[in-house]
Amino acid sequence: MRPQRGAQLESVGVPTIGATDVLVRVRAASICGTDLHIYGWDRWSASRIHPPLTFGHEFCGVVEKVGDEVTTIRSGDFVTAEMHVNCGHCRPCRMGQPHVCQNVKILGIDADGCFAEFVRIPARNVWKVDPAIPEHYAAIMDPLGNAVHTALAGEIAGLNVLVTGAGPIGLMSIAVARASGCATLFATEVNAHRRELAKKMGADEALDPSQGDVVKHVLDATDGAGVDVMLEMSGHPDAIHKGFQMLRPGGRASLLGIPKDPVTLDLVNDVIFKGATVQGIYGRRMFETWVQMTELLRHGRLNLEPLFKERMPLEKFDDAFALLESGQAGKVLFYPNGSAK
Amino acid sequence: MRPQRGAQLESVGVPTIGATDVLVRVRAASICGTDLHIYGWDRWSASRIHPPLTFGHEFCGVVEKVGDEVTTIRSGDFVTAEMHVNCGHCRPCRMGQPHVCQNVKILGIDADGCFAEFVRIPARNVWKVDPAIPEHYAAIMDPLGNAVHTALAGEIAGLNVLVTGAGPIGLMSIAVARASGCATLFATEVNAHRRELAKKMGADEALDPSQGDVVKHVLDATDGAGVDVMLEMSGHPDAIHKGFQMLRPGGRASLLGIPKDPVTLDLVNDVIFKGATVQGIYGRRMFETWVQMTELLRHGRLNLEPLFKERMPLEKFDDAFALLESGQAGKVLFYPNGSAK
Amino acid sequence: MRPQRGAQLESVGVPTIGATDVLVRVRAASICGTDLHIYGWDRWSASRIHPPLTFGHEFCGVVEKVGDEVTTIRSGDFVTAEMHVNCGHCRPCRMGQPHVCQNVKILGIDADGCFAEFVRIPARNVWKVDPAIPEHYAAIMDPLGNAVHTALAGEIAGLNVLVTGAGPIGLMSIAVARASGCATLFATEVNAHRRELAKKMGADEALDPSQGDVVKHVLDATDGAGVDVMLEMSGHPDAIHKGFQMLRPGGRASLLGIPKDPVTLDLVNDVIFKGATVQGIYGRRMFETWVQMTELLRHGRLNLEPLFKERMPLEKFDDAFALLESGQAGKVLFYPNGSAK
Amino acid sequence: MRPQRGAQLESVGVPTIGATDVLVRVRAASICGTDLHIYGWDRWSASRIHPPLTFGHEFCGVVEKVGDEVTTIRSGDFVTAEMHVNCGHCRPCRMGQPHVCQNVKILGIDADGCFAEFVRIPARNVWKVDPAIPEHYAAIMDPLGNAVHTALAGEIAGLNVLVTGAGPIGLMSIAVARASGCATLFATEVNAHRRELAKKMGADEALDPSQGDVVKHVLDATDGAGVDVMLEMSGHPDAIHKGFQMLRPGGRASLLGIPKDPVTLDLVNDVIFKGATVQGIYGRRMFETWVQMTELLRHGRLNLEPLFKERMPLEKFDDAFALLESGQAGKVLFYPNGSAK
Repeated sequence: MRPQRGAQLESVGVPTIGATDVLVRVRAASICGTDLHIYGWDRWSASRIHPPLTFGHEFCGVVEKVGDEVTTIRSGDFVTAEMHVNCGHCRPCRMGQPHVCQNVKILGIDADGCFAEFVRIPARNVWKVDPAIPEHYAAIMDPLGNAVHTALAGEIAGLNVLVTGAGPIGLMSIAVARASGCATLFATEVNAHRRELAKKMGADEALDPSQGDVVKHVLDATDGAGVDVMLEMSGHPDAIHKGFQMLRPGGRASLLGIPKDPVTLDLVNDVIFKGATVQGIYGRRMFETWVQMTELLRHGRLNLEPLFKERMPLEKFDDAFALLESGQAGKVLFYPNGSAK
Repeated sequence: MRPQRGAQLESVGVPTIGATDVLVRVRAASICGTDLHIYGWDRWSASRIHPPLTFGHEFCGVVEKVGDEVTTIRSGDFVTAEMHVNCGHCRPCRMGQPHVCQNVKILGIDADGCFAEFVRIPARNVWKVDPAIPEHYAAIMDPLGNAVHTALAGEIAGLNVLVTGAGPIGLMSIAVARASGCATLFATEVNAHRRELAKKMGADEALDPSQGDVVKHVLDATDGAGVDVMLEMSGHPDAIHKGFQMLRPGGRASLLGIPKDPVTLDLVNDVIFKGATVQGIYGRRMFETWVQMTELLRHGRLNLEPLFKERMPLEKFDDAFALLESGQAGKVLFYPNGSAK
Repeated sequence: MRPQRGAQLESVGVPTIGATDVLVRVRAASICGTDLHIYGWDRWSASRIHPPLTFGHEFCGVVEKVGDEVTTIRSGDFVTAEMHVNCGHCRPCRMGQPHVCQNVKILGIDADGCFAEFVRIPARNVWKVDPAIPEHYAAIMDPLGNAVHTALAGEIAGLNVLVTGAGPIGLMSIAVARASGCATLFATEVNAHRRELAKKMGADEALDPSQGDVVKHVLDATDGAGVDVMLEMSGHPDAIHKGFQMLRPGGRASLLGIPKDPVTLDLVNDVIFKGATVQGIYGRRMFETWVQMTELLRHGRLNLEPLFKERMPLEKFDDAFALLESGQAGKVLFYPNGSAK
Repeated sequence: MRPQRGAQLESVGVPTIGATDVLVRVRAASICGTDLHIYGWDRWSASRIHPPLTFGHEFCGVVEKVGDEVTTIRSGDFVTAEMHVNCGHCRPCRMGQPHVCQNVKILGIDADGCFAEFVRIPARNVWKVDPAIPEHYAAIMDPLGNAVHTALAGEIAGLNVLVTGAGPIGLMSIAVARASGCATLFATEVNAHRRELAKKMGADEALDPSQGDVVKHVLDATDGAGVDVMLEMSGHPDAIHKGFQMLRPGGRASLLGIPKDPVTLDLVNDVIFKGATVQGIYGRRMFETWVQMTELLRHGRLNLEPLFKERMPLEKFDDAFALLESGQAGKVLFYPNGSAK
């Protein structure tokens, strides 16, 4: 890709791997919202991305080759990967929080990623996929991990939950919360199609925050208390404002959605007097989230089928980005090494 | 009852209530293992119980009358109760742990309980039952609360769980763990009928620890790691020993079952080198457990039907105790104020 | 007091007490920032306070009389009190979070308080003062409890701490953090006198955020990581902004200071990408905070002497409020029943 | 060393290092209780140790050389090390608990250690020592880390603490608990000299459990409640039994001491009915414990001087082991590369 809107399909060599690396032949790759930003070449992309770069960081594939010192992964293993490569020696890494490493290098952003036939990954970031997990699910474990991280960042069984924003990760978080024993699950989402999906994924109520007083509705439905847990998946200021108003005193707000601009918060009433706990959520716990996600998937606890849309060869990438830029929810899968099963 | 084996049905006056008390007309009452001890008049009973006493502490009913200062409960409310009445001023109470109050008074043990037409309860211990919860479930919220307390005393979603002992509370804990998103759920139980029930309640595998090497089996099934969470519901030393051997390093062991005698533990290998967390579980969190349990029940997340056995009038108490003393699992319900619906 | 700026000293009867109340003869009372708002009759006061009202909620005194059902408090006991009276039945109360009760009634705000010779308090809110605690310390356990609650709302031993704002509670939080084994303690405060006090209370560095780049300074002093824990005690937007910039990824921000207006936050960089945990802090844990505070005080772990300023008879209240409105830090004590020892 | 009691000083080559290793010239080494077991060649040693082996795992030194891929450590750095080398891919490692790795390899036990002029260590296990930390403290960060891990495995500020057993790590844990704001600190220890040391390290009371009723004494001193936190550092069954009796309901028991044999526990009264949390403590959190320990040391919060006994050249190892086998508490330091400063 070049430092401008769009992307190009080019022929590059197969990556060479070091002693502790793994080379993976990509089976299926999926487009993240971040990839849309890169494709659109927005301000953030211009400041962070250094072309030429193979982008893409959601995928699954088969190990083609492993470095000399790699003992736990073998050729032929079906894998995906944690694409955030942490440094191991900064204070967050040393404090057991590698997911917020200060020197993180993200494959597909800071180095070559997976929209290609082959991708090179450090062995310790490779995750073997349980055979019970279907291929198309394996391709989206990166964003599913965001959802699992957010939903399970605190207690959830027997608690009332609000999910603000029903984009792909918001939808996944609904499935995770439901599978984890949440009580009433409210979703708010302005897009009618996504509200339909939210209900399919397990929301008890999918509310349109642009119509009527959703805050009053949720407070009334919870005996005036508000929800115990708020999963903020939209990044939209209105959703954040209303979400905090719907959160009960002493509740948990876990924020994953990325607001474009700074957000003005009524800290006194929404956080301080409420004694709320607000968590910033980034990436996936390494590797607690991967363990929990694997278990939920291999036991069939998560039905993610409603999320999947188009499957297409990598060559049709412009169609794929156009489709997603049109605002349609759901995951589009690429198959760089041949057609989908 | 008298200081000897057995019990008597006697006519006693309707309890008088104080300004902060509530009088409840008992609809259905259920027999706890503790009641069996009292009926059997074992050493513990002889030291703790001061007859005459109306025993029984699992029930639901309708409020008949409330004290002058009671504002949150009204006549006609359908209720059950937390029968552990805490003092409010000991150090555990002051530290947010009223469930282990040093001066607890248990209704049905230290004061009159619910095997009667009427029971008197302090208003703050009365729990209004959500209308979506069926009557027979409302009658067993006390032991179900033990199960919820045990299962949700730590993370459980996406984790492998072992339940040792499939008596009534063990069986309930299987349902709770399953509803809360646990991964593989192993149960161990010597009684074949209870193993059947364990599977009905949601266990993936119900193993007979007297046959074959269950420890090896569970370790093999978990890639040599062992389970993440052990819920000890049997009180049996063999189950405890094997359970700890099946617990993975860094795992959680939550102990609710009551061993008759002191238990010899291999602390070094089973706890210390493992970095295990062992939790003693007693009663129900007041009232976090009640909130979570109510939500799970009113959303229909727990199918407890396999647990219910006989329903009989209070007069047939001797039959009921005989049935339970025969070792049959399941809950027997009394109806002191008329027949079951 | 009347619905206007200022207050009046008036003769009112001794409060009558109910069966579960305690009557306390006030020994020393202290002025809270909230009292300044009430005295100044700002917008918040006009909306919340219903005169006539005896305000004031920080004090200590001697029990004069107890209600008929009070068994744990006696005449002559030296006491202070938690002045937030919780309802006991809302969802936060039921979830073990009575400090954020939805129906809280605060004595001195919603009902008569302690700027008087006598104050009536429900027995369960009365706190017996350990004899090892000096009288003037006993008078300020309410705000000290805010500081203890904030500092000990997460891990602190061996961690670098930032306290933003060195008003009375900020200063107390410095003493608490220091006594609890914090590593480097940075304080930021624009007022030079308060910076002096911050160092006396135990800050390693007391920085003027209006001079130079304090963010860079703190980042440099922490190897680029930032502090592990931020205690926000100022309520000032600049302090909050800079504080978050000084917080390391994965850190804890505990917010007690009350901003006058909504605050615009760079949620993405300061909270979400950082994986920060932000806690709203209100009141005191009931009564974990009181237990911890009592232990710290009776063991002499907290030197609060630098905080104390004037002591005066209650009659001189106008002088006291004028002194505090002038912006001087420190606590002013009233002695409604005679002169200070 | 050979498969028999005792050890030999032998000339071996300087270890060769791999690309990710570091070679350290040992400055000072210290003897652990485990080393006494190895020297004494007990049953455990015979089963675990495969001679010839250079044992020893507590030390500090100066980096002599680093492997080709090591970027964060340089020649000349003053370092110590976490000698538990974890695998990174077992379930505990993946769950953020590498300190209980199922495939751990301990340098000095499973591979060559530090009782030598040079020791080879994987770079990620090397810990740079802050310049403010004195050399003899740097040499004992391994056992000090055990103490920090144990003391800080839960809340401790403002809480009453019992330390059972005042051997070196028990004594260190007293210093850590004191520095972290504990309330009353009780120590129990049968050896009079160690009781003296316990008081020097900061115990309020050092009790002889073989004289009088220490359980009653501690219960009386805590208003009948018992201590909030028990740090079990002895491994002795009597200490464990009495410790649990002194633990309050809802308290935390953190077990580090290694009992020789299985221990019979009154699980019902000491753990279950008490709602106690019992934690097995092993090794050091990697590397949270190291961060906290470093901060406590470099800020001078821990006075460990009373712990240090003899300093001697490595050649006098037989004298050193004889001294420690005589039951004297304290740390003996070796200087394999020249005399102590």
